[in-house]
Amino acid sequence: MDELIASYLVYDEKGNLEKKAESIALGLTVGSWTDLHALEQEQLRKHKGRVVSIKELDPAGRAAGKRGILKIAYPTANFSSDIPAILTTVFGKLSLDGEVKLLDLSFPDTLKKTFPGAKFGIQGIRELTGVYDRPLLMSIFKGVIGRDLDYLKDQLKEQLLGGVNIVKDDEILFENESAPFEERVTAGKEVLKEIYEQSGSRALYAVNLTGRTSELKDKARKAADLGASALLFNVFAYGLDVLQELAEDPQIQVPLMAHPAVSGAFTSSETYGFSHSLLLGKLLRYAGADFSLFPSPYGSVALEKEKALGISRACHENDSFKTILPVPSAGIHPGLVPLLYQDFGIDSVINAGGGVHGHPQGAQGGGRAFTAAIDAVLQGIPLSEQAQSHEDLSQALNLWGYAEAAK
Amino acid sequence: MDELIASYLVYDEKGNLEKKAESIALGLTVGSWTDLHALEQEQLRKHKGRVVSIKELDPAGRAAGKRGILKIAYPTANFSSDIPAILTTVFGKLSLDGEVKLLDLSFPDTLKKTFPGAKFGIQGIRELTGVYDRPLLMSIFKGVIGRDLDYLKDQLKEQLLGGVNIVKDDEILFENESAPFEERVTAGKEVLKEIYEQSGSRALYAVNLTGRTSELKDKARKAADLGASALLFNVFAYGLDVLQELAEDPQIQVPLMAHPAVSGAFTSSETYGFSHSLLLGKLLRYAGADFSLFPSPYGSVALEKEKALGISRACHENDSFKTILPVPSAGIHPGLVPLLYQDFGIDSVINAGGGVHGHPQGAQGGGRAFTAAIDAVLQGIPLSEQAQSHEDLSQALNLWGYAEAAK
Repeated sequence: MDELIASYLVYDEKGNLEKKAESIALGLTVGSWTDLHALEQEQLRKHKGRVVSIKELDPAGRAAGKRGILKIAYPTANFSSDIPAILTTVFGKLSLDGEVKLLDLSFPDTLKKTFPGAKFGIQGIRELTGVYDRPLLMSIFKGVIGRDLDYLKDQLKEQLLGGVNIVKDDEILFENESAPFEERVTAGKEVLKEIYEQSGSRALYAVNLTGRTSELKDKARKAADLGASALLFNVFAYGLDVLQELAEDPQIQVPLMAHPAVSGAFTSSETYGFSHSLLLGKLLRYAGADFSLFPSPYGSVALEKEKALGISRACHENDSFKTILPVPSAGIHPGLVPLLYQDFGIDSVINAGGGVHGHPQGAQGGGRAFTAAIDAVLQGIPLSEQAQSHEDLSQALNLWGYAEAAK
Repeated sequence: MDELIASYLVYDEKGNLEKKAESIALGLTVGSWTDLHALEQEQLRKHKGRVVSIKELDPAGRAAGKRGILKIAYPTANFSSDIPAILTTVFGKLSLDGEVKLLDLSFPDTLKKTFPGAKFGIQGIRELTGVYDRPLLMSIFKGVIGRDLDYLKDQLKEQLLGGVNIVKDDEILFENESAPFEERVTAGKEVLKEIYEQSGSRALYAVNLTGRTSELKDKARKAADLGASALLFNVFAYGLDVLQELAEDPQIQVPLMAHPAVSGAFTSSETYGFSHSLLLGKLLRYAGADFSLFPSPYGSVALEKEKALGISRACHENDSFKTILPVPSAGIHPGLVPLLYQDFGIDSVINAGGGVHGHPQGAQGGGRAFTAAIDAVLQGIPLSEQAQSHEDLSQALNLWGYAEAAK
């Protein structure tokens, strides 16, 4: 009997973790057990939930009750192989029932096989961009609402000329008259081609896939036909299953970049919702994202380091799916590259908005400063030393400061 | 210029609510303002966010920083008319940025017009069931995982014979071999017809609509063709836009019952996520649910009374959409009918699982006890008095106790 095992952080005000665990295991599966006749127990045994383990934690300042981590196994026979059914089973009613946070889900192989994982993953993205043996560099369109296509093309070009490998749309840029989706795809393709012809660098431009849920597949297929090189997707404003259906579609041969918009509503609380590593790591990876964006531990919109690292581990760890790229974002400037490299490793994306556009030499200078910083880190040269021969980096470090990695 | 106004509960550790509000209004729209040339300001003015109001709250025990309610106006020109675009705009990046809870959204009429609202609503459900001038009575299948169609038919019949108006599937019952979706629809229709022929009562059976996102419309259309009388939907395991697309489909002429599964992950925290009234009230109503289920304030899975009432108000309040039925659920037994009636009014659904099935006379007795309790409340008779001439009610009150409404 295959089981999906869910780990929860719970607080039980009655102080009886055993009873709570048992009530979850039965209440979310067969309902009751000891009331059933022997024959019914025989029939329903394969559907019965099971308490795997109970680990009591320190009370974290609570005067009464108990905190703990409960692991409950749910037979896969109970649900169809899709994320909505899984979430409803393991965290449907339970999400409403007091202090409970879903920390992790452990999928049996038979269930994993029904998920697509990424089409490209880290290796695929490296092949598309020709960037090996170093973190990728990404930047973000800024202040583009209400702007026309020429403005966007210029901004894209500026970013790419600085040496970034990937540019993403602003996630709040939706279908609009001055820069419609398909025209952005086409214009982006032209700019990318132009840059490639100039510099020999292949880049990706992640166009924001938006609109009504049922239109997304057709829009994504059309974008792929028109030569889109990547798609940005606000998956948590839609649903993980919508991402998965995009990833499964054989006609959408384009990397998918998952934006964390709205996900803070489900992950930020210490006591409710989902863990970061599960939602922005494992589930995105299983559902087919190639990139997972999340707040870096360093910027103004900061995520605690352990949580950011948890997402990154879930993107990288050994599993039956392609590894995917963690993209710690927000507040990133060239002076943070040593920390980013130390914390997220070579298989990550260094992503900046203001840290590219706000450079004294504009986005081109920003891109060059990042490139110099990455070169330095890869060669084990301190940034301060590298800055002596790289004026753009020097200006960036002067403006935003810098941190060397801990030894 | 039409604007969508969002209300947030925020805590700003720097203690500058004005600055925070301004940074949201600009950061989530045009990006910056004072840096722009006069001509650019002219072009972008219609896209610029605006601080509507700032209300400082008491610090709630915080030593530093400030708490407050910020209202920010977002021009509707910035986003397409769909819930994912709206949520990404008003609570995308912002949901990740410290302590912030989205309390409410106030839609301009032009934006409201793009939403469907319920197809049936309270009036429509009353016409379908023939139940006027009293709360509707609903019950829930129990312990049906792994059971066959005959078992489900028997359970449905027992519930309906007790006089319930609506029966809903267990939300954790997915597509399965022993009781497939379409067979549940067909079997349910037969049982409902049989009961109608016996008793003259028309009832609804909400079948759980599950599966992959892109299959749902076809499944729902097929269900409607096969004579389904209602559909249950785990909207928060999918996405609000998926519900909206079901509601908009002219071929799905069936009431939609929104289950709150998974929603606790987005609503339970006092400092993060969505308010209950917005997510389970207003947004469900705009998107087209006919029923909104949520935890009652009385049971073991309890929601604070003010929050439950907030959902109910959002279902009922004057707006351009049909009013919909609040369904306070979990832990409901006949002795709570006076409180339910007092708190949620005549236009609500009294919904019980254990309080119907756990009755000493079985589900039929449970249904009769609830019916007697509702009759008593409508006639202003105390439950204790009504119980003297209604044995089923008497047994229920003995088993579970009772509460009379406050005078």
